[in-house]
Amino acid sequence: MKSYRKELWFNIPTRRGFVNITQQVEICLQESEILEGLILVSAMHITASVFINDDESGLHQDYDRWLEKLAPHEPISQYRHNDTGEDNADSHMKRQIMGRESVVAITNGQLDFGPWEQIFYGEFDGRRKKRVLIKIIGE
Amino acid sequence: MKSYRKELWFNIPTRRGFVNITQQVEICLQESEILEGLILVSAMHITASVFINDDESGLHQDYDRWLEKLAPHEPISQYRHNDTGEDNADSHMKRQIMGRESVVAITNGQLDFGPWEQIFYGEFDGRRKKRVLIKIIGE
Amino acid sequence: MKSYRKELWFNIPTRRGFVNITQQVEICLQESEILEGLILVSAMHITASVFINDDESGLHQDYDRWLEKLAPHEPISQYRHNDTGEDNADSHMKRQIMGRESVVAITNGQLDFGPWEQIFYGEFDGRRKKRVLIKIIGE
Repeated sequence: MKSYRKELWFNIPTRRGFVNITQQVEICLQESEILEGLILVSAMHITASVFINDDESGLHQDYDRWLEKLAPHEPISQYRHNDTGEDNADSHMKRQIMGRESVVAITNGQLDFGPWEQIFYGEFDGRRKKRVLIKIIGE
Repeated sequence: MKSYRKELWFNIPTRRGFVNITQQVEICLQESEILEGLILVSAMHITASVFINDDESGLHQDYDRWLEKLAPHEPISQYRHNDTGEDNADSHMKRQIMGRESVVAITNGQLDFGPWEQIFYGEFDGRRKKRVLIKIIGE
Repeated sequence: MKSYRKELWFNIPTRRGFVNITQQVEICLQESEILEGLILVSAMHITASVFINDDESGLHQDYDRWLEKLAPHEPISQYRHNDTGEDNADSHMKRQIMGRESVVAITNGQLDFGPWEQIFYGEFDGRRKKRVLIKIIGE
């Protein structure tokens, strides 16, 4: 069994944002030289997500508005987590809806994807450096 | 390390629906001859889910009504994604709540499940052919 | 390839609660003697979750209140699942938001975590014995 590990770093200039990281993950997969296995792509921070969906800017606007409706940022005082001096309680909720991680099959050295699947980093409390972990096992 | 791959195809006649795919996954596991490992079951389309829960029709009605409350299909014009000519923005949201994939342990050649765990394909934009990927690694 | 399996048992005295299980998972990882691989931590029951987030009591209060807002327990009669004699339909929904499982990378024999990642058992229908499965594969 082979294994491979890499961190991707992000510094999203806004509070919230989505970044397509599919190509970066594909480069890691090539570097790993693993042909059959599983790849885990996970947010190392608890106010961010890794998820798989469509690379369509209208949809990303919809996600942002929808998550803000389900878990509003304001008023900050509605969350007990924010009593600690944080203002990001809503980010911890948005991240649960969008998920921490994705596991993707590797077949013939490729991400084994359907026609529209793309991997995204979802930031819900940006304006600072944060990381995604890529771990591949297989052979 | 052994690996195994198979696609399951679905054509749900309604917009939304849930299908128990546990038996089909078990047949794949038998074909793989893998006794210890992990199995990834993932939706290859971005308006569908794979999730694990109870095979109880009342619950599935509840899920459908609940998802429709959290991310309503109508009015279609509320979503920017639908400006592209699609009408399925809500399906992309429902899928995030129910999840893209499940990873299940394999022990002694069986799905290592609790008493009520069953695997479902969740369709949120049906009436066309869509796929689920099964990938098994182990030995 | 090595594999390891263990069940953790819980009996949460209240209907809902969150338990930090990170240390118990780390002990399993040490017992497994696996240095590189993946670990699956999954709820074996369909009204419970395993998720990764912050060990902060204010946040856990926020999660509890938020989940109750998105999928209220009362009135019980609003859910068709409860026509079966159950009163836990809401628990099946809360569990979908928080997720069934987490997959964590193992690197150098450690959980490969960011600075704040902790693993939680999330109970949404407690006051009885329930289980979490830990499965590790790697070498």
